[in-house]
Amino acid sequence: MQLDVPRYTERFGAISLHGVQRVYELDSGFIDANSASEALRRIGNEQIFQIERKMAIVIPIKGERLKLLEGVLSGIPHDCLTIIVSNSPRQPVDRYKLEKDSLEQFNRFVGKSSLILHQKDPGLSDALREIGYMSIFDSDGMVRNGKAEGMMVGMLLAKMAGKEYVGFIDADNYVPGAVNEYVKIFASGIAMSNTPYTMVRVSWIYKPKVSESGLYFSKWGRVSEITNQYLNSMVSYYTGFETEVMRTGNSGEHCISMKLAELLTYSSGFSVEPYEIVNVLEEFGGIIPTENQEAMDKGIEIMQVETRNPHFHEEKGDVHLKEMFNGSLGCIYHSKICPPKLREKIIEELRGKNVIDEGQIPDLLQKISPFKNIEISQFSKILHSRATSFAYSG
Amino acid sequence: MQLDVPRYTERFGAISLHGVQRVYELDSGFIDANSASEALRRIGNEQIFQIERKMAIVIPIKGERLKLLEGVLSGIPHDCLTIIVSNSPRQPVDRYKLEKDSLEQFNRFVGKSSLILHQKDPGLSDALREIGYMSIFDSDGMVRNGKAEGMMVGMLLAKMAGKEYVGFIDADNYVPGAVNEYVKIFASGIAMSNTPYTMVRVSWIYKPKVSESGLYFSKWGRVSEITNQYLNSMVSYYTGFETEVMRTGNSGEHCISMKLAELLTYSSGFSVEPYEIVNVLEEFGGIIPTENQEAMDKGIEIMQVETRNPHFHEEKGDVHLKEMFNGSLGCIYHSKICPPKLREKIIEELRGKNVIDEGQIPDLLQKISPFKNIEISQFSKILHSRATSFAYSG
Repeated sequence: MQLDVPRYTERFGAISLHGVQRVYELDSGFIDANSASEALRRIGNEQIFQIERKMAIVIPIKGERLKLLEGVLSGIPHDCLTIIVSNSPRQPVDRYKLEKDSLEQFNRFVGKSSLILHQKDPGLSDALREIGYMSIFDSDGMVRNGKAEGMMVGMLLAKMAGKEYVGFIDADNYVPGAVNEYVKIFASGIAMSNTPYTMVRVSWIYKPKVSESGLYFSKWGRVSEITNQYLNSMVSYYTGFETEVMRTGNSGEHCISMKLAELLTYSSGFSVEPYEIVNVLEEFGGIIPTENQEAMDKGIEIMQVETRNPHFHEEKGDVHLKEMFNGSLGCIYHSKICPPKLREKIIEELRGKNVIDEGQIPDLLQKISPFKNIEISQFSKILHSRATSFAYSG
Repeated sequence: MQLDVPRYTERFGAISLHGVQRVYELDSGFIDANSASEALRRIGNEQIFQIERKMAIVIPIKGERLKLLEGVLSGIPHDCLTIIVSNSPRQPVDRYKLEKDSLEQFNRFVGKSSLILHQKDPGLSDALREIGYMSIFDSDGMVRNGKAEGMMVGMLLAKMAGKEYVGFIDADNYVPGAVNEYVKIFASGIAMSNTPYTMVRVSWIYKPKVSESGLYFSKWGRVSEITNQYLNSMVSYYTGFETEVMRTGNSGEHCISMKLAELLTYSSGFSVEPYEIVNVLEEFGGIIPTENQEAMDKGIEIMQVETRNPHFHEEKGDVHLKEMFNGSLGCIYHSKICPPKLREKIIEELRGKNVIDEGQIPDLLQKISPFKNIEISQFSKILHSRATSFAYSG
């Protein structure tokens, strides 16, 4: 892969927030030669492979069509560990079983390693209870519904498998080649990073909309634009300089080094992706004290890479739009480091969009604790013995 | 890449027509291990790279949008030689110049080798005239309009550059990841082939249609289905067994080994792709004598590989539909080996579709001679000195 070196970086405490980098070649060949240009980096296929071997790709799934899942699986490079965390219904049709069968058939054919687990497996909650990691439980002692919780379970499985990097890819992608590009972007970002504490976020070049007159290649998602605006405002408030650096606040496709992932606090629901940024700013921005001095010393890098492939995915409609605004801006509003003026603006924005009523504030979202100190071998032991939905192949 | 070994092969003289092979993994990793399954072949990235180094990718272009061309360029693996043959208008806006600028900017950034040439360059016709290769000329002594002629020029440039394989990719593809997959398919097919005389044709898994209610993933193109049916009928007539083996009659995305490419006679217009198959059957089917005994001895393989990526491309509308039917079926009709009964059926089909009138027969298409015996160094010399649109970079 050949891509921009970051042309612009916003420093915020120990964090380097890099501006969007473009991809020039999906496949820059074998020879690890230097790029023709000073402004580009060429990450050779061998180097990408070395990183992919240490990477798990987590696919949270909830009833997405199997045809789409099969396409996504075919796009993930062979040497990555695929982890599916499903919250699909098990009745009247056991969708989870279909997903598992599909994955196992694929793995049998191609000789690949994968893990699959159902989010609501009682054996999973047993294992989590045993190690005292219960911030992802709901009131009845099971893992909550939600993509964020699925991602968390995926990260624990990746840690259990000893992986150094964990990437997330949605199950509703129409284009296997785009999935392949996401993983190459993850690996290239990691190759370019200068610290073990790295996050690589994908920015879509286009999100085509289907209209009567054909495809229209629009640049931004509806929620993303607003989320990015408020994340940028938060950065600007502290630096004193306005910025547009943040472009991937709602990016579902992203990758985190395990060393960084296990230090973060996560937020539930639709705020999971933007809150990753907020929490990085909270933890490593130098505004409030942190326990993670090593990460502060080594520095944190956030990279944003724009894909070459357009993002053709299932159109979910506008039903969740209000909820997404509430979650995305709410997690900024409730941040310990959110300046009062920004809080006022968020309230205004949400009222203007009829997301909240007069006098209301955004919902306070449930938080999920860092998993750095969990006893992963104990978790693994109980999971293997009690989680009936858990399957390993390859 | 990991894909099916051919499960079904139709033998026709010296030709092996393999049934459609599916792709399981876009990237099967580095280690050249055997596949988990007997029915699959795993082509390692190193092996693919060794073939890509010897491959030219020809992009015929005629006014397609630059954004799409740029995407296509980014999807071609770095180690392939890119060849653009343009027939874009040079007035009122010099579209060719824009394409050339775009290509040169891309090459400068990524350090890649490419050739670009305008189909109507008088220096090109000079060079062709000098070596006596004039079957692609129109009456005024210039290269004819048409994609087939663009492809021919591309093949000559590939031969000039000493490439062993030449692949074709259309310029109107929305998905760079799909372009990347086509090239991996070309290379994998060549890796699996047992003869130096090979053709690899791409079959699309889906051609999504844009409708009011969203995307509909239809399986076949309108013309392809009919073309394939008649190509299969022709094979069946000789073998005595009905077959559905041929599925890629109109495939624009395909690759030919130079050793095979230079032996073939080509047809103009929309019949170029199906006539490649017809001409292979004519030349190597053992029905009529051939001069190419070496190829007969080594055998000819035609592979058809189904993509994982759906084919999102510019919808050109129905304007050319009749012309496409006329050309695709016409080149079968006029073949020296077309049985009289099949001719009758083609006439019926074309009348039923109002493509031809009572008493008419399909248009006789112009043929382009094999280029095995041209003096390529002489061609190169004149081209370099006189073709003002010709540019080489990298």
